[in-house]
Amino acid sequence: MGMRTHKMRIRIHYGDTDAGGVVYYANYLRFMEAGRYEYIREMGTDLAELQEKGHVFVVVEVEAKYHSPARLGDEIEISTGIKESTPAGLTFISEVRKVKDDILLFSGTVRTACLDARGRPTRVPQDIMKRIDGPTGMKEEDLV
Amino acid sequence: MGMRTHKMRIRIHYGDTDAGGVVYYANYLRFMEAGRYEYIREMGTDLAELQEKGHVFVVVEVEAKYHSPARLGDEIEISTGIKESTPAGLTFISEVRKVKDDILLFSGTVRTACLDARGRPTRVPQDIMKRIDGPTGMKEEDLV
Amino acid sequence: MGMRTHKMRIRIHYGDTDAGGVVYYANYLRFMEAGRYEYIREMGTDLAELQEKGHVFVVVEVEAKYHSPARLGDEIEISTGIKESTPAGLTFISEVRKVKDDILLFSGTVRTACLDARGRPTRVPQDIMKRIDGPTGMKEEDLV
Amino acid sequence: MGMRTHKMRIRIHYGDTDAGGVVYYANYLRFMEAGRYEYIREMGTDLAELQEKGHVFVVVEVEAKYHSPARLGDEIEISTGIKESTPAGLTFISEVRKVKDDILLFSGTVRTACLDARGRPTRVPQDIMKRIDGPTGMKEEDLV
Repeated sequence: MGMRTHKMRIRIHYGDTDAGGVVYYANYLRFMEAGRYEYIREMGTDLAELQEKGHVFVVVEVEAKYHSPARLGDEIEISTGIKESTPAGLTFISEVRKVKDDILLFSGTVRTACLDARGRPTRVPQDIMKRIDGPTGMKEEDLV
Repeated sequence: MGMRTHKMRIRIHYGDTDAGGVVYYANYLRFMEAGRYEYIREMGTDLAELQEKGHVFVVVEVEAKYHSPARLGDEIEISTGIKESTPAGLTFISEVRKVKDDILLFSGTVRTACLDARGRPTRVPQDIMKRIDGPTGMKEEDLV
Repeated sequence: MGMRTHKMRIRIHYGDTDAGGVVYYANYLRFMEAGRYEYIREMGTDLAELQEKGHVFVVVEVEAKYHSPARLGDEIEISTGIKESTPAGLTFISEVRKVKDDILLFSGTVRTACLDARGRPTRVPQDIMKRIDGPTGMKEEDLV
Repeated sequence: MGMRTHKMRIRIHYGDTDAGGVVYYANYLRFMEAGRYEYIREMGTDLAELQEKGHVFVVVEVEAKYHSPARLGDEIEISTGIKESTPAGLTFISEVRKVKDDILLFSGTVRTACLDARGRPTRVPQDIMKRIDGPTGMKEEDLV
């Protein structure tokens, strides 16, 4: 049995916001990346060490929906799971909610491919694959 | 007849990149935003002035595809067009290419909604709508 | 007696780094801002609420020293204190250390001024001033 | 005779600003970095190529003064020069002005050290040093 969901909380500071008074839209991709990093780390693999060994996950595709804006001072919770895993790469699913009233702020999927040091497609390391339990991995309904 | 495509060029500096040696994936959303801002500005509307008048375009949905990585020192060209326009909002389409060899690096669509000062849906200002020639607006094939 | 130092920990993710393989130099200013926000918040004042009431701290001057680089995956500790407080503004002092071996990565001071809603200088709110105990406030030697 | 000053112009977009309605303070370090990159590039050295050859300039110290805020839609001019050059590194000086009314927004100095691929101090490459004409290099008064 693998981990189903990783959750982490951060507070919104000035550097996350823009002149519209809300979190700048690109910064949700930073939040998703932080969530993915910590998710994989809790499964036992540090991406920094993985990169030193010549494996890197590159983002191939992103789908993002902005449901409600987050503002300065809000505490948010970033939930991360795996939607699909193949030997070529992992597809992550993320949700960001406001902690105070549990409002859904953002949801997104990020498809990644695993590359070697020369930038060629390679298999996702076994250490990671064996922790992800295929059919029972993270799904959209688990995030709710 | 409205403007079909806006093009702008920038060079990749350290602040755009990450430890993978390439442009950080969230920064393409910054590039798209810069392209949208300048596109609308060339049509005669400055988004800063529009915000002062109580209209703001908020991002509702993003779809992004990462075709090839950009690296430190690369000059890139950001092309921006409008894929769809409705009274409720505009959907933009963007492409980022490497200038040197015209390689496609990134493509994305960004759906926006027009809100008033209180955050309620409102109509896209006439000044902007009349510049966008509905059915003949920017399409994916125009970007190529 | 006021709070002497605020400490918070974060991990370095891809979005914090650059193509040199280390944390991008501007991001330490983000770390310092996060530290200041949380420091003031622990003293009982949320800067988002303060801004709604028409008070904002703007940065007037920054001095920053980069002692040793932080890398992807490093856990860092951000220490924040107040070096000087006057009715016109606060000067913060920050240090960033690597948690693993307690190496000093970065140190900086940020001088701020308190402005009202129209951007004119105003006095630092009493709520904040009374929590900072003048001569016994945070000093450089307390951070060590 | 070396180049005395490099000037480049950019417009402020949402991604540069924060919820205070002005440019976020850390982003001026991005502007300075862009200016340094282009300054050195105009002297004939691309920093990306230099890094491939095993030389990198790391920032050791920053001093920054925030004179007046820049806002969404403002066009700014970034001026970059060299304040001091030694075999161990270069100290850059930058100014950011609002184009519309030539108001000084920001000034800063950035001291860098030249390192080799292993992170050890090394001499600034001759190609760069010979372009910088020591005593007649960029000075603070030249920026005005």
